[in-house]
Order: sequence, then structure tokens, then C-alpha cells
Amino acid sequence: VSIITLTTDFGTADWFVGTMKGVIAGLAPQAVVIDLTHDVPPGDIRAGAFALAAGYRFFPEATVHVAVVDPGVGSARKAIAVQTPHCFFLGPDNGLLSWALAGEKIKTVRTLENAAYFLPRVGRTFHGRDIFAPVAAHLSNGTRIQRLGPRIESWVRLDWPPVRQTPRGLEGEVIYIDRFGNAITNIDVDALQIPGDATLEVFLGRRRLCSLAAFYQAVPRGRAVAVIGSSGFVEIAVSSGSAAGRLGLRVGTAVRMTRRRGA
Amino acid sequence: VSIITLTTDFGTADWFVGTMKGVIAGLAPQAVVIDLTHDVPPGDIRAGAFALAAGYRFFPEATVHVAVVDPGVGSARKAIAVQTPHCFFLGPDNGLLSWALAGEKIKTVRTLENAAYFLPRVGRTFHGRDIFAPVAAHLSNGTRIQRLGPRIESWVRLDWPPVRQTPRGLEGEVIYIDRFGNAITNIDVDALQIPGDATLEVFLGRRRLCSLAAFYQAVPRGRAVAVIGSSGFVEIAVSSGSAAGRLGLRVGTAVRMTRRRGA
Amino acid sequence: VSIITLTTDFGTADWFVGTMKGVIAGLAPQAVVIDLTHDVPPGDIRAGAFALAAGYRFFPEATVHVAVVDPGVGSARKAIAVQTPHCFFLGPDNGLLSWALAGEKIKTVRTLENAAYFLPRVGRTFHGRDIFAPVAAHLSNGTRIQRLGPRIESWVRLDWPPVRQTPRGLEGEVIYIDRFGNAITNIDVDALQIPGDATLEVFLGRRRLCSLAAFYQAVPRGRAVAVIGSSGFVEIAVSSGSAAGRLGLRVGTAVRMTRRRGA
Repeated sequence: VSIITLTTDFGTADWFVGTMKGVIAGLAPQAVVIDLTHDVPPGDIRAGAFALAAGYRFFPEATVHVAVVDPGVGSARKAIAVQTPHCFFLGPDNGLLSWALAGEKIKTVRTLENAAYFLPRVGRTFHGRDIFAPVAAHLSNGTRIQRLGPRIESWVRLDWPPVRQTPRGLEGEVIYIDRFGNAITNIDVDALQIPGDATLEVFLGRRRLCSLAAFYQAVPRGRAVAVIGSSGFVEIAVSSGSAAGRLGLRVGTAVRMTRRRGA
Repeated sequence: VSIITLTTDFGTADWFVGTMKGVIAGLAPQAVVIDLTHDVPPGDIRAGAFALAAGYRFFPEATVHVAVVDPGVGSARKAIAVQTPHCFFLGPDNGLLSWALAGEKIKTVRTLENAAYFLPRVGRTFHGRDIFAPVAAHLSNGTRIQRLGPRIESWVRLDWPPVRQTPRGLEGEVIYIDRFGNAITNIDVDALQIPGDATLEVFLGRRRLCSLAAFYQAVPRGRAVAVIGSSGFVEIAVSSGSAAGRLGLRVGTAVRMTRRRGA
Repeated sequence: VSIITLTTDFGTADWFVGTMKGVIAGLAPQAVVIDLTHDVPPGDIRAGAFALAAGYRFFPEATVHVAVVDPGVGSARKAIAVQTPHCFFLGPDNGLLSWALAGEKIKTVRTLENAAYFLPRVGRTFHGRDIFAPVAAHLSNGTRIQRLGPRIESWVRLDWPPVRQTPRGLEGEVIYIDRFGNAITNIDVDALQIPGDATLEVFLGRRRLCSLAAFYQAVPRGRAVAVIGSSGFVEIAVSSGSAAGRLGLRVGTAVRMTRRRGA
């Protein structure tokens, strides 16, 4: 079985995603299409990049990951295909793929220029349907990536906000708010370098928010807690509630983690 | 073909459901995954239980139904697998499966303890991906349920609010509000025991809401009507409108059905 | 591979669409079901008709397109099946299919009356599950459309609002607002009849909104622009924003296109 995933900001209220799947079904009937998400906020390349980076590694070998958050569609921005030892990525060259690629060995990156793999009529407003869907279908059918277009050596990379080590602890920021209102930070497990996790506390400026615990319900209903979330990053949650809503967290909010005084 | 259904509160805005499908695709490539819904309100176990109970019976034999509304993920709550003569159920042992199971003969209930059927690394925040998805894939592949863990004899059951027969008629309550704003009650067709349905009226306290009719547009646009809904329960609707919004109905609102005076 | 598409107003918050797929999976296990959309506004037949008309042509030969926006379910309204040289359509006879059919040669239209192809128990509130899903599965399995019911010669057609040619230019209206807030008009490429598109401007009454350009980002962020959208109609957008929200456009809003003065 050959898997194609889709990560877009097209939403599901219209027919856009459906027509991408129709194009794929016509060209690669055996491919199984899996939605990663279509509810990336419109034009939010960083949110799309994070979703793709958090999700792609759970798919089988040779999966073709298509991502389309593409406010510049129809402009001079390039479209690219990337091959790694494990899988393929397709998307506009606007940084959307870059956080997923940061952890991968890159075999080749190609610009999508060979119109033989596009729909016969390509417009300037919906490359998801006219270019990315058919190219994904062809890759899934075994078309070699070299046929899609010329090799390029550089592509757009989004900055990943750094985690700073200070005398007072780690300083990072919120990088994604999920459906539950959990605030996922850029502080990953490796940065923590702690023997146990019971002694770590999260601050918003001078305001202590919560301690790191092992799971959401380690605190009473309605209380804040930090956990190591399912993507490997520290996330701030409110048990049975929305941390973003109750604590006023949003993407970019600075957070600090320190050892508890006296611990 | 082997079917796996998913009923969760994960929403579709993030990559959570997609990664569950990626895990399944890697382990059981032949399985077809069907979303029952992912928009159960966050943490609302009763709403998830109702959705599963209303939907599961329309799937073929041997379907594996996975339900994950799991605010206690990572705590000591158990995870269970259930086999009935027709199908399988997987979920946290928090009552989520219990309304579907109430109408089924139970062959065996097992706790999920055999980590050989989990992902290699199991966290404490996303058992949908780390435990339920891979176990569903293995069941779909033919793994016998006995291998998943020890048998248990009791599991958490949600109360089903009773329908009371009184001299004035039937007393029940709203149990679910659907996407159209229709208010589904716990009063089922069997409880009605009526020769025809033309003579039944629905009251909210002393306020008469509507009569029972055969279909939504039996009343003019904007008027309230009760029908026997597609899951076999009396539901209160507003033709071309939202009954919940216009009549102030919510889950738990008490309703009463009586024969019309003089009929 | 045999494709069945679904276009409904059922939303994805409940189990409705899932049970349609369960019914199809039981009867036509080889069929691949693709969602066109389930988020047609409740009861909005025109929005559903536009979505289907915009999307269906991107699917392979012999696809069965099922559309259910059906406020009159259970009433005397008919249900129909349509065969064209390329595909099949199923839906209530309320105009929902008519904009898609307007561009097709019709081979036959049948009313769905043969209950042998329905679920054994058909209610009066959810024909998507009880009638349309099983009939779609049977068509997908190769059942001939003639077996579904008698031929009819007329069916309900929705009016398509006309585009008027006046001395001042073209007068049309907004026919659909998409997820991005783009306002899609009824003015299609053929009506424009222009050598280049640089000289066309869009007016709302006397207020000039924008010029026609080749792609969304042809204007700076936050500015209005008209483009020829992916369905072949002129659409009004705001670069990185919502045209509907910022310009106060809604379905039915009259728009006018003229050549720029002096061009």
C-alpha cells in the first residue's frame, strides 16, 4: 500500500480537498490518502510546518507527504519535492516543509517544473489540485523524483525559535496551540536534561504557572500542569480545560522553566 | 475488507487523528479506517458514548470500533478491549464504551496490558496513537483478543437516565444535541407504546413545545416538531432551524410527553 | 477502483456521515469513499449545488456522486439517480444536483423506488443512511440504474442567476463564499471575453473594489484583488485576509465588472 498524506489550510467546508483526492484517485487508484489536517489557520505557514513536523514520522516508509499552505500560489515562489531515506515531501518552497526536513537526511530536492506530471490545465490559484495532487500520485506510482524537475541546493527554511539556557533555567516560547487549548512549547525533552521531572516549574514572566507532571490529570480539574507532550515538547495544559484560554497563552508567548527553589 | 472506526474528541485541527491512521496503515495496510466523529466535545465522555452507541450498529461484522475520549490518559485508568458476537470495541475504561455495550452480548473483556501490541515508546498523553491505534491494527490483522491482556469481569458503566412513566405521560430528558440543533431525548420508540403517533405532545415544564409528527417538514418552516429520529429516539427539531437555540434546550433538559387532551 | 463521493450538510460533529460509510462498506467493500464536503450550511441547497458543480468534474469515470442536503427528507419530495456518459449522481430531487447536471449530457434519470436497494428499515429522517448510501453502494457494485425505479423526464432545477451585459460592463452577483472568505461570483471566464485581463475592475455599486489580476498575491497584504478562481469564476479576495469579512460581501451581493476608464 502506498500512502499520501495531506496537510493544508483549505478547511473542509468547501470542495477543495475533495477535488485533490479525486485527482489522486484518477491517477493512482491504489494510493491511500490520509488527512493530517486541513485546518491549519489560513496562510499560517508556521502552524502548518509544526503540524507536519509533529505528525509525519508516524507514517510508513515511502509515504508521500503533501503540504499546501500557500498564500503565494501563482506568484514566482517555487514548488519543491524532497526525497529522504524514508519518505517524500511535496509543497511550496515557503518554509512549510523545513521543520520536518530539519530532522532528516536529504537525498535530493527538486523544483516541480515538468508539466507532464501536472493536470493539463494549471491555474494560478489552486496548485494543490493542479500540481501537488497529480505529482503526489505520480510519485506514489513510482515515478522517480529526478523526472519532476531540476535539482536545487537551497530552499526556504523557517527559523526555529531557540531555547536559551540561563542561570535561572530554560527560556523558550509557545509554538503551537492545539485543539484542547494546550500550549506546546519549543522546549524539548533533550533540552530538559533532568534526572526526574518532579522538580521543574513553568513561569510566565514572574508568574508561576505550574509544575511538570507525568500526565494531564496529575492535578485537579481546572488546574494548570506541564507535561511532556506526545510530540516530545513540554506543553502547558489545564486539566479538563483550555490552557490557552485560561492562562492567556498564545503562539510566541515566552515561558521559562526552572528547578523548584530548594529542590 | 477489515474496518476500523474512530470516535474521538481529538478534533481535526491538529495532526492527532492523522498520526493514528499512520500507525494503523503501517501495521495493517489492508484495513479501512472510517471516522465516526472526532468532534466529541473535549472530555465529554457521555457525548462520545452516545455517538458510538448510535453509530456502531451500521458497520459490517468484525469491525473494530476504537473510541478515545480520555481525559484520564496516563493515570491509573485502565484501557480495555471488548469482543461481542459481531464486533470489537477498544477504549479507555471510563464508561465511553458502555452505552454501546449495553445492547450487546459480551464474549470477553480484556485489559490492554501486553505491550507487544503497543508502539515501542508509549507516552502518557496520547494513548490513541501509542496504544489504541496499534492494538486496533493487530485485532484487524487477526490477533486474538486473549493475547492483549487479562480478562476482567467488571468495567465502568455510565448511568443511562431513566424514562419515567407517570399518570401524566412519559418523563425523560435531552441526551444529545446534534449538528442541526436537534435535541435527541432518551425516550425511545419502545417506551412510546402508541398505536399511532399523531396524538403525542412534548412539554417543557408546563410549556407545550410541539406534537410528534412523521418527519421534519410536517410543520411550517421555523416551527417546532418532534420526530422519531434516525437512532430510534424521540428528537425535538425546528423545521429549517435549531431547536436547541430557539427553544433553549440542552443536554439534561427535562421533557415530558403526553397524549393530547381530548384525543 | 470504484469511487463514491459524498456532499452533505450533515457536518462531522455527529456520527451521521460515519454511518453512511459503514453502510457502504458493508455492501460495497471495494468502494473508496471520498468526502467532497459535509459542511454545507444546514439546508442550504444552493451552496450544496455549487460545491457539487465545482468539484465533481475532477473525479474519475464512473464515480458515483451522492449529495444530501435534504430539509424535505421524509416528505413527498422524490429521490433521484442520474446517469451521464461519465458518472452517476444521487440525491433528493430538490435542485441540489441541477447545477452539476446543467453542463452534462443526461442519459437517464430515475426515481429511487425499488426498496430492494435500500436498508431493510427506512425511516423518515435520514435517507442519507437508509436510501442514498445503500443505493450508491449497489451502483458502485454494477447494479444497472434502470433497476432503481421508473424513468422521469423532468426534475427540479435551481435558477442560475444570470450575468447581464450592459453598456457599463458585466453585472453579476456573489454566488458562494469559501473558507478563506473569498467571494466567488457567477461571472465565468467565457463571459469576460477579454484579450488580457489587466484592464478589468470590480465595483460594488459605485464603489471600486479592485482590479482583476493573475493571482492572490499580485497585490500587497490586506488589499483586495479579483482573480479567475479555480472553478473558472471571477472571485474577489483579500490578500492574506477575508474578502467577505472586510468588504461586506455575501451570497447575492451584486457586483459589476468594467474596463478601466482610459484603458
